[in-house]
Parts: sequence; structure tokens; C-alpha cells
Amino acid sequence: MAGLSRVIDYLNNFKFSASDIDYLATLKDGDGNAYFDEAFLEYLGDMKFECTIDAQPDGSIIFPHEPVIRVKGPLMQCQILETPLLTIVGQAALIATKASRITSVTGDEPVMEFGLRRAQGIDGALTGSLSSYIGGCHSTSNVLAGKLFGIPVSGTHSHSWVMAFQSELEAFEAYADVMPGNCVLLVDTYNTLEGVKKAVKIGLDLKEKGKKLKAIRVDSGDLAYLSIEARKILDAAGLKDTRIVGSNDLDEYLIASLKDQGATITMWGVGTKLITSFDQPALGQVYKMTAIKNKDGEWKNRIKLSEQNIKINMPGILNVRRFFVNGKMAGDMIFDERDKMDDYRIIAPDDFTKRKKFGMDTQYKDLLKPIFEQGNQTYQVPSFEESRQYHLAQRNMLDASSRRLVNPHLYPVGLEPKLFERRSELIIKLRNR
Amino acid sequence: MAGLSRVIDYLNNFKFSASDIDYLATLKDGDGNAYFDEAFLEYLGDMKFECTIDAQPDGSIIFPHEPVIRVKGPLMQCQILETPLLTIVGQAALIATKASRITSVTGDEPVMEFGLRRAQGIDGALTGSLSSYIGGCHSTSNVLAGKLFGIPVSGTHSHSWVMAFQSELEAFEAYADVMPGNCVLLVDTYNTLEGVKKAVKIGLDLKEKGKKLKAIRVDSGDLAYLSIEARKILDAAGLKDTRIVGSNDLDEYLIASLKDQGATITMWGVGTKLITSFDQPALGQVYKMTAIKNKDGEWKNRIKLSEQNIKINMPGILNVRRFFVNGKMAGDMIFDERDKMDDYRIIAPDDFTKRKKFGMDTQYKDLLKPIFEQGNQTYQVPSFEESRQYHLAQRNMLDASSRRLVNPHLYPVGLEPKLFERRSELIIKLRNR
Repeated sequence: MAGLSRVIDYLNNFKFSASDIDYLATLKDGDGNAYFDEAFLEYLGDMKFECTIDAQPDGSIIFPHEPVIRVKGPLMQCQILETPLLTIVGQAALIATKASRITSVTGDEPVMEFGLRRAQGIDGALTGSLSSYIGGCHSTSNVLAGKLFGIPVSGTHSHSWVMAFQSELEAFEAYADVMPGNCVLLVDTYNTLEGVKKAVKIGLDLKEKGKKLKAIRVDSGDLAYLSIEARKILDAAGLKDTRIVGSNDLDEYLIASLKDQGATITMWGVGTKLITSFDQPALGQVYKMTAIKNKDGEWKNRIKLSEQNIKINMPGILNVRRFFVNGKMAGDMIFDERDKMDDYRIIAPDDFTKRKKFGMDTQYKDLLKPIFEQGNQTYQVPSFEESRQYHLAQRNMLDASSRRLVNPHLYPVGLEPKLFERRSELIIKLRNR
Repeated sequence: MAGLSRVIDYLNNFKFSASDIDYLATLKDGDGNAYFDEAFLEYLGDMKFECTIDAQPDGSIIFPHEPVIRVKGPLMQCQILETPLLTIVGQAALIATKASRITSVTGDEPVMEFGLRRAQGIDGALTGSLSSYIGGCHSTSNVLAGKLFGIPVSGTHSHSWVMAFQSELEAFEAYADVMPGNCVLLVDTYNTLEGVKKAVKIGLDLKEKGKKLKAIRVDSGDLAYLSIEARKILDAAGLKDTRIVGSNDLDEYLIASLKDQGATITMWGVGTKLITSFDQPALGQVYKMTAIKNKDGEWKNRIKLSEQNIKINMPGILNVRRFFVNGKMAGDMIFDERDKMDDYRIIAPDDFTKRKKFGMDTQYKDLLKPIFEQGNQTYQVPSFEESRQYHLAQRNMLDASSRRLVNPHLYPVGLEPKLFERRSELIIKLRNR
């Protein structure tokens, strides 16, 4: 989960501005009549956010079918919030997830998010950089994200730095001169291993001055072979402290494969595949009406049918209870807060034969936290660093089998039996209507 | 091509603000020393944009290897612009291209861009909506994009509108009541064909009042079968004017397939796959130094090597000449503006055996247009509608064989022979160094 902090900013600034209203007043239907009458536009102009919102905090590990943000309030406001909330949270959660997959593979080795130029727009990059950080990345090359969010920035020089000089060595010397305390040299502008040899000269010069060549960066070619050969050259010269940064269309699969093949890269620059969540660039999250009060003030459950059962929403006033066994996450139960439970059982939403039971003394926590109470923020937003640490701690509680990149063990998420029955009855009733 | 108008906005507002400088002053290297000294930060703070820029206009049809934006100016500024220009143009050109592919398939039938909630952030959605429009879409559901860019907005009611009422019919009646001049009913909340029958009642009521049911929308299930059956029901009721809107994870391939199967959809709502360019969410465009002036003021060509020849940039001061034969685009020649030509020949950059020749009397145009002259805008930005019309006109000049979705005929793009030779020599010289 990511994006909650930006949702909170959005909601604290929620209003229709005078220019919004002026624009809406210009919209006309096919007959040339204004879509919206004056009274309605005035109503919009006066609208104050007054919903109650509960949500899973940034950094949480979220699963399909679980409520992530729950909005309760006047129907009109709940409806207006649908699209902005999906837009803000969808991308943020997606990129945070991708970052978490990548940093799961790299372990303690730093991952630098290098995606700005390939992001979907400047703001897409900002959200992407922040979400990457929450998902476990160590820094971003996006300096504006550093400024706005206070997250660490890092990068290297460009190929054009090298091309601007008469020779690669001259370029390296000039760079070491201006960046003696953070010297990372990009060695593949012309020939990678020749570049490494020139970097060694710089490294030895810096060493003499009591400084060091922090790293070299390889951004093309066979990163396994080149990093292994580069490591030999650096080690032979006594530059055992100089690390190797690898980059070039990396993702979690390629990093895992490079590690399998003995690549000596210990810092990773990850761009395109991370910042766009390249292999899954949109999250299929939905925002559904699950209950509505009738004229007598009674809550009525609601679902939207779909041909595929699994696409039908859960009805009711929902929360998620996460169970822990031996300090590990053991299963999540989606339940209606109005139900009383005598035991903890869950039924998979897509296969009613899959069931699981937890003892009443099982340790648990309920995942939705209060964020706004009738329009007033009640939640203290953690720092981005805290959200990142929270995520890493949560991830440690998720079994390795569920973190496997390919064919992971499916973490158990199910419906509390009364909710399961209520949903099934509603579906059958509506289908027969 | 898209995004140029936003690049122009960006460049007209180019500067380091006081808060940017303050932030940069806080950055420290591994030794705890400031990265940037005061003199440099002052220099940045005083920097005024003074580059000369030529570019292909928004709506242009661009091909791999061609220069799209050419930046000439002080090295530092050219370098600083690399990332913002790639970020702004990459996404815009990508989404415009996807939109053009989709609207190529739908022909005269309107395509409504419905992607906001699945876009990569709010700004990603804005650029996406604008670029979709330039690529041939007819409208967007993104009302903010309508307000900011003056492009047409359109949409339908939501499933939750239906779920908020006691019955679907009641919901439809209420909607027709408030939207008599633009009534589109979403019929698939519970059961699509039952929903169509209820929509028919509304359609007949509207007809009696001299209005009409503009369309029904099907957003799930088998869109071919459901639209065919819905058409029969509408026609049998005398509602031949009521159109059918189809939506649900559509892209150019699915639309083509639905048309093949006789779907009676004549308006298309396209969201996720368009707004993220789902199957290719990042454009691999690059920004390379192609020439630099030496101390004597002479231009020196530059390339960056890569193991793959095709990834090595073209050196020089480049432009593109597009040839037209019988009113159709016949081939593009990338050339160095300083070269004189006795004839028009092109050599494919990735296969020197592929060559093509155009007579000296062939009609042509050079594609890069002056945008900024030493920091001053010289280009009159066309309206978004003009860019859209320009694109559609250009697309008509591209042969259908090159617009085929699968295995298209590759439109010929080649290097002018002197440029080809110069590049080959530079590569071999650098590889041998």
C-alpha cells in the first residue's frame, strides 16, 4: 500500500474552486442546454469534505479482495472521491509493490531508483520515486522528489559527460576533481573494460589523496560477465572497496538471474521497469458501494453483479483481520464489523471448498486505521522513512514461500463465513430477479 | 509526436527557484562536504534558458532513429534539459501513438478516453488525456483535462448510480430526468439484456417527449454477443437511433476482433490499455550529444558506442527529410544539414544492404521546425484541435500496409549516405581505440 499520504493531502484540500464551477457551467448537452443548473453548481461550490475514512497505512502488505480504503459519508461525496482515490492509490501501490519485489531480491544491497526519464510524466515520476522508497529502495535520482519528500538522492554522471571531453580519462579526472567525496564513474561509454582500467587510475589517485573511488557503473552489455571481469581488475589494483553499480533495464527477474550467474554488482540502478511497473502498468483496484442507508436509516448491503463471481464486490461494512502465528503472517479474514464471531474461520472468495480456521487465541490485528472522522483528519501521517521501515518489517513477517517471484504460495485471504453466506445469498437473489 | 506544447511551457518557465537552490545547498557527499559550492549555486540561480530548439510538431508521425527534438546551446543547459524533455515527450508520444492505433481501427466511430482512474497519477492522466485527443480520440472523461486543455468531455453514469436506487428502472428514470439531452444508460449492473429492456422503456418515454435515448453502454461480458442482442432489442422497439457504447479493457486488437465478430458497438470507451499504453508503458527514446564545438569553434561529431550497432546514435547536426509519392509518405531520410546532396539516397541504419533512392524532383518536406531561437520562442503553438487534425491528415498519407496492427510493412527510414559513412567510420575508429 502506498499513496495514503497523498490521498490525505488531496482530501485536506478538497473543494471545487471558482474556476472549476465556471468551467462546469460551460458544459452543455446535445440539445445545447447546460448540464448543471445554478443551484447544483452553488451546492458544489459550497461543498465541504465530511466523510469518515479508514485505511491501511502506507507500507502495508495488501492482498486482492481486501478493503484498503473505506469511505463513509454522503453519497454524492463518496461518489466524487471514486476517481481521485483510485488514481492516486493505484499507481502508488503498484510502484511500491514493484519496488518491494525488487528490493526483496537485492537484500541489503542498495537499490537506486533511476526512473525519472521513463516515468509517465513528471508527477508520475514523483509518485513513483516516493512509492519506490516506501517499497524499500534506498534513494532516487529524481532531485525534485528529494526536495519535495526529503528522501535520499543519488546518481552518477552521464555518458554525455564523457563525450564532452577529448578523452574518457580526461572526463574521469574532471569528475573526480569535482566529486571527490562521491566519485562513481560510468565506464561503458566506449568500451567497458577499457573504461574500468581508466577508472582504476582515478581510484589510485584518489587513494593517494586519502579519498576513494566509491564505485564504477556498468550500464550496458552482459552485466554478469562485465562485472566479474571488472571486479578482477579493481581487486588486482587493490581497489577492493570500490563497488560496482549495475543498471540497464533491470527488474527483479533479471537481477535474480544476474546474481545466479555470479555478477559482482552490489548496487543496483533500476529505472524503466520499476517506475512504470512495466510488466503490469495499471492496478485493477476498484471502488465499490458496499452498503447504503435507506430512508429509515438502516444500512442495506449492496453488490454489483458480474459474470465472474470473483469480480463481485464484498457487501457490508468491512474490515480485515490479519492473524499471526509464530511471528509470521498466517492469513487474512475479510469481515463485516457488525458481525459477532464465535470462532475465526475463513472461506476463499473464489473457491468455497478452501477453508482455514484460527484458534480464538490467535494473535491478530485489524488492518483499517481511522484516518478522517467526518472530514477531520485524526491520523498522524508517519514520515516516509517510517512507512518504509514499517513495510520492511511487515515483509519480514511474510513467509518466503509467499514472496517467491514465480508461482508463489498463495497467502490465505478469505471471507468470514457470515459474510460469505450473505454475499452468496445476495448474488443468487439478484441473479434470479 | 506529442508533448511539444508542454515542453514549450516548461522551457518558458525554466529556472532554478530560490527554494531549489536552498535544497541543492543541503546536499552533501560521503565525506559530509557540500556537493555544490556557492558560486555554482549562484550560477544556477541566475541561469536563463538560451538554447535553440527545433522539433517535429505535435501530431507528427515519427519513426525510430529520427531526431524529434534538436537542442543546441551551452553544454550545461543542454545537459540539464535531458531528463525533463525525455520525461515530458516520452509519455505523451507513447499515449498519442496508442490512441492513433486505436482510432485507426475505429475509423469514424467516436473513441472516448476513459482512463483517468487507471492512469499513472493525476498529471499522468492529464498528459494522457491530451495526448489521446491529439492521437485521434474524440473526448475524455477527465473533466480537469477538459477544463485545462479545452478538449471535449464525455462520460456516462456509474454502476453505483444504479446501486444507489431501489431498482435499476428507478435509477434509469432518475438519470433520464436530469440528463434528458445526453442520456446514456449503463445497462450491465445486474443483467445486461434485462438492463437493455429497462433502457428501452426510458428510450420510449424520451421519444414521446421529443428527446432520445442517446446510447446504452455495455461494460462487461461478451461485448460481441451482448451488443448484437441489445441491437435487436433496441431496433425491435423502434430505437434505431440509440447507439451502443462498448467498454471494458479494450485496445486496438480487441476492438478489431469485436468488429470481425459483428459487434454492433459504434462508440468506444477505452481506458486502462490506452492511458498507460499498457503493452508498452515506456518509450525507449534517447537524448544524445551528437556534436560539440571544440575550443576553436569547430563542430566535432560525437557518438556513444554500444554493443548493438542500432543503439549507437547518429552523429552530426541532423534533420529528417520526408518524401512523398502520389500524395503518400514514401520514405524518410535522416541527414546532416551541413551536407550537400546530389541525389536522394537512404541506407537503413541496421542493414546497409537495404537502400532506396528518390529522384531529385520528389516532393519532400524537412520535419524539424524552429521552436526557440536562443531562448526566445519563435513557434506559434497550434491549438490541440489543430494538432489532432494535423495528425489525422498525416496518418491518411501513411500507407495502410504500414498501419497494419500486426507485422506492418516497415516504413523506410534511412541515413543519407554521407551520414551513414561518417557514422560507420566513427564507430570503427572508437572501437579500435
